[in-house]
Amino acid sequence: MDGSGEAKAKPPQDRLADWLAEDMAAVNRLIRERMASEHAPRIPEVTAHLVEAGGKRLRPMLTLAAARMLGYAGTDHQKLAATVEFIHTATLLHDDVVDESQRRRGRPTANLLWDNKSSVLVGDYLFSRSFQLMVETGNLQVLDILANASATIAEGEVLQLTAAQDLRTDERIYLQVVRGKTAALFSAATEVGGVIADASEAQVRALFDYGDALGIAFQIVDDVLDYGGTAAVIGKNTGDDFRERKLTLPVIRAVAAASADERAFWVRVIEKGDQREGDLEEALAILRRHGAIEAARDEAVAWAARAKAALDNLPASDLRDMLSELADFVVERVS
Amino acid sequence: MDGSGEAKAKPPQDRLADWLAEDMAAVNRLIRERMASEHAPRIPEVTAHLVEAGGKRLRPMLTLAAARMLGYAGTDHQKLAATVEFIHTATLLHDDVVDESQRRRGRPTANLLWDNKSSVLVGDYLFSRSFQLMVETGNLQVLDILANASATIAEGEVLQLTAAQDLRTDERIYLQVVRGKTAALFSAATEVGGVIADASEAQVRALFDYGDALGIAFQIVDDVLDYGGTAAVIGKNTGDDFRERKLTLPVIRAVAAASADERAFWVRVIEKGDQREGDLEEALAILRRHGAIEAARDEAVAWAARAKAALDNLPASDLRDMLSELADFVVERVS
Repeated sequence: MDGSGEAKAKPPQDRLADWLAEDMAAVNRLIRERMASEHAPRIPEVTAHLVEAGGKRLRPMLTLAAARMLGYAGTDHQKLAATVEFIHTATLLHDDVVDESQRRRGRPTANLLWDNKSSVLVGDYLFSRSFQLMVETGNLQVLDILANASATIAEGEVLQLTAAQDLRTDERIYLQVVRGKTAALFSAATEVGGVIADASEAQVRALFDYGDALGIAFQIVDDVLDYGGTAAVIGKNTGDDFRERKLTLPVIRAVAAASADERAFWVRVIEKGDQREGDLEEALAILRRHGAIEAARDEAVAWAARAKAALDNLPASDLRDMLSELADFVVERVS
Repeated sequence: MDGSGEAKAKPPQDRLADWLAEDMAAVNRLIRERMASEHAPRIPEVTAHLVEAGGKRLRPMLTLAAARMLGYAGTDHQKLAATVEFIHTATLLHDDVVDESQRRRGRPTANLLWDNKSSVLVGDYLFSRSFQLMVETGNLQVLDILANASATIAEGEVLQLTAAQDLRTDERIYLQVVRGKTAALFSAATEVGGVIADASEAQVRALFDYGDALGIAFQIVDDVLDYGGTAAVIGKNTGDDFRERKLTLPVIRAVAAASADERAFWVRVIEKGDQREGDLEEALAILRRHGAIEAARDEAVAWAARAKAALDNLPASDLRDMLSELADFVVERVS
């Protein structure tokens, strides 16, 4: 017994975290250092609340894994990993204001504990800190990638404002929103890891494709779980998107196949926002009737397969295997 | 009559605008181009509302003037000028959410016309667009300056949240807030103009000092005008800071010299926010009693003098003269 059997049973992101433990410790130090503020005590209060709540630190791990996989031996990838986590945290703070959320990672949100003002301004602070960190690497290609990703993220969030409650929103627009809210930061995270490691153009492209596809799979799975997964039953975490009238892939599929009565239902609950007792149950029944949840799940699985295929263009390594298993793991939650 | 006498009577920012007309036209084209969004129609709606409302475009002019003054002959200073205006517009959008403002530049604010969500997210979009623009210059020193300015701005805004309603806020903290909310972008605007023109270190420092002092003078004047200027009478635009319980320089001076009764008054209206009919009049009477408005005005005049002194380290030119007169003009409103 050398414990390797036991290690193998761990989910891939835990094995990634073990492999990258030293790097991650450095990233966590950087995050703590840089989220402090000499002058404004409200800043560390709010950021500590969020950063200590943890989360999986998936995005910074992707940057670290990409860089190490390609033999990078410096420390700038740690700055980029912290950059990516800061951008992610800043968007969470602003999202919670936009969605008027009350809970995040099992704790009350910052907008609830402090106020919307603090969430907006501390989010801005984290954006500017992320910007300082990436400038320190002195790598203009990295700056270009992260600037473009930031624009895609913000554009996707604005697009969601108008597209979410509009039944004309089709899969093409949905994909744009998903790239903005999730995949753009995943793909930037992996891409900059490759760039800082001085990888070839084809390898950088493969890393982008992996992150993009993984992010899309990740978000579709989230959207599917919001309707109870393939079981399509109501649980504690079911129905947030429905109540917020967010048009996600399962509903888009069901709307495309809707009878006249069903269409009238979607117009009422999503477009008009006139939701009554029993409507979520009715929505789930319609989704089941059209196999819409399974269809969305199949889409997620297809994106995970694309993510794995992209890895074929990168040198074989333990880290590459873990990234491949991570793609499977992401969609396992709905299989 | 060649019209030069008439031209001389124009305020200095109008003469700057004339001198820089070609550059400003290019900047305005850039702003229109880059604020568009292919995917999210809400973005140009909101940004057009703000950008077309105009404003004086003072900050981009500072960048253009600084670069041209030092003989810059390229076009990257236009990108930097547009960058600075985008950062400014983004902070306005977020400020209006934070302050729950209803009017800006004589028009209803975006948060009122659309919603807070749009203001937060479109602000984020403009930040990311500004970031793309500055990366295009490929100048790492410029990126460093603007990243640091962004962090100072956000930090100053957060500091204001906690410092504004706290009577312990002294002139040192006030100055930090003012640097954050106003002077950091002024000084970055002039500094990057010098850097892109390949100015000497001493010249870049002088440009920073000019922008910093001008920005501080500008903000103190704003704060003085909010109490009716040296006349200290109530007008249409008087008392916003009082109602929002923002501790600005006139009140800080009056609090420092307050009798026990006066102190109790400030505690009630600023710290506790218990404001009644006639309180603004009472505040103005106290400010007059201690000469607090004049004292704040004198501070602004001193900062304007510092701005002008900084220009001595730069080569004589028409543009330098206009920047010098601009410093006088900024404080003339309260003289």
